Amino acid sequence: MTMTLHGYFRSTASWRVRIALALKGLEHDDRFHDLRTGAQRDDAYLAINPQGFVPALTLDDGQVLTQSLAICEYLEEIAPRPPLLPAGAVERAQVRAFAQVIACDIHPVQNLKVLKRLRALGLEEPAVTAWARETIEDGLDACATLIAGRAETPFLFGDAPGLADLFLAPQLSNARRFGADLRWPRLLEVEARCLELPAFATTAPMNQPDAS
Amino acid sequence: MTMTLHGYFRSTASWRVRIALALKGLEHDDRFHDLRTGAQRDDAYLAINPQGFVPALTLDDGQVLTQSLAICEYLEEIAPRPPLLPAGAVERAQVRAFAQVIACDIHPVQNLKVLKRLRALGLEEPAVTAWARETIEDGLDACATLIAGRAETPFLFGDAPGLADLFLAPQLSNARRFGADLRWPRLLEVEARCLELPAFATTAPMNQPDAS
Repeated sequence: MTMTLHGYFRSTASWRVRIALALKGLEHDDRFHDLRTGAQRDDAYLAINPQGFVPALTLDDGQVLTQSLAICEYLEEIAPRPPLLPAGAVERAQVRAFAQVIACDIHPVQNLKVLKRLRALGLEEPAVTAWARETIEDGLDACATLIAGRAETPFLFGDAPGLADLFLAPQLSNARRFGADLRWPRLLEVEARCLELPAFATTAPMNQPDAS
Repeated sequence: MTMTLHGYFRSTASWRVRIALALKGLEHDDRFHDLRTGAQRDDAYLAINPQGFVPALTLDDGQVLTQSLAICEYLEEIAPRPPLLPAGAVERAQVRAFAQVIACDIHPVQNLKVLKRLRALGLEEPAVTAWARETIEDGLDACATLIAGRAETPFLFGDAPGLADLFLAPQLSNARRFGADLRWPRLLEVEARCLELPAFATTAPMNQPDAS
C-alpha cells in the first residue's frame, strides 16, 4: 500500500500525521504544499481536498482522508501496533479529550487562516500575535489540568508515546513561535522526551524538505 | 450506571452528546449550567471540569469525561448498538472527518468565547455576527463537499443517523441563529429527517428545562 501525505512543513496538523505514520512504521510518500503562497488553493490540490487544508492522506485506491484526528484514528484502525490509544474506554476518552483540546480549542482558533481574518478586520500585528498566544496559553492550561494528578509516566498517558503526545509536541512548537509563556513543566518534560525519538525528530518541521 | 451530563440548552456541543445518549438509549441525569451568567466558571463546576466548558460527562465512579467528540466515541465503545460509526475504516474516517470539520473548523471559531474576545477587541456587533456567519458558511461548504457524490441515503452516511448527523443538526441550528445563507440542500434535507426523530427532537435546545 502506498499512501501519499499532503502537508506543509510548518503545519502542526500535518506534523501530527507524520508522527503517527512514523510511530507505526507506515511507508508513504510526502507531498508538500506551500501555504504561504496559497498552493493549497491551486486547482490541482483542491481536486484532492476541496477544503484546501492540509493534511490530506491519499490512499492507494485514490480515496482521500482529511482532518488530522480522523486520519490518526484511521491509522490506528488499519495498523493497531504500536497503539496510539490505551485499552480502556475511559482512558481512551481521556487521551482523545487531551488531543481535542488542541485539535478543537487551540489550533483552529490560532491558525494562519484565523490570523489572516483578524488582520483583515484591522487588527495590528501585536494584537494578532496576542490573540494566538492567549489561545495557546489558555488551551495548554486546560491540557495541563487534564493530566494533573496522573502518575508521571514517561509519556502523557503511559510508557510509550500516543495520540496525546503527538498532538502536544507540534502545539508546543507553535507556542514558542508565538512567544507563549511556557508555564507547563510536565508538558515540556514530555515534549523533550518525545523529541528524542526519531518518529518526532525526523518529522519535525525543520527536517522537512520544504522547510525554509 | 448513572451518568450525569453537564450541559446548557443552547450549547451545540452539549446537544451532540444529548443526541448520542438518546440514540443509544443510555439513561443519565442532566445538569444545566447557564453560560450567559458564567455559571460554568463557578467553583462547583470548575471542580468538575477545570476548563469551564460544557459538556462534561460524570461517570458513576466520579470520573469526568470532556470534549463532545471524545464523549461520543466513549459512548460508542461502551454501548456499540446502535452504532454511531460505520464498519469500514475508510468510512469511519470519512464520518469522523465530517464531524471534525464542525468540531474543529467551525464551532470553536464561532463559539461564545471567541465572539466575546472579538467584541473585547473593539469589533462592532455586525462584524462579530459576520465573523460567526462566515465561519459557519465556509465550514458547512466544506461539509457539503465531503459528501458530494455520495449516494443520497436517508442520513448522511447511511440508513440510520450517526456521528456526522448528530454534529450536523446542532450546527445548522447555529447557522440559523447567525443568519447564515442556508445553501446546502442535502444537509438541510438530512437535518429535517433527523429532527423528526425523538433522539434529536426531545434533546433540542428549546425542549430543555433551562431553555429561555
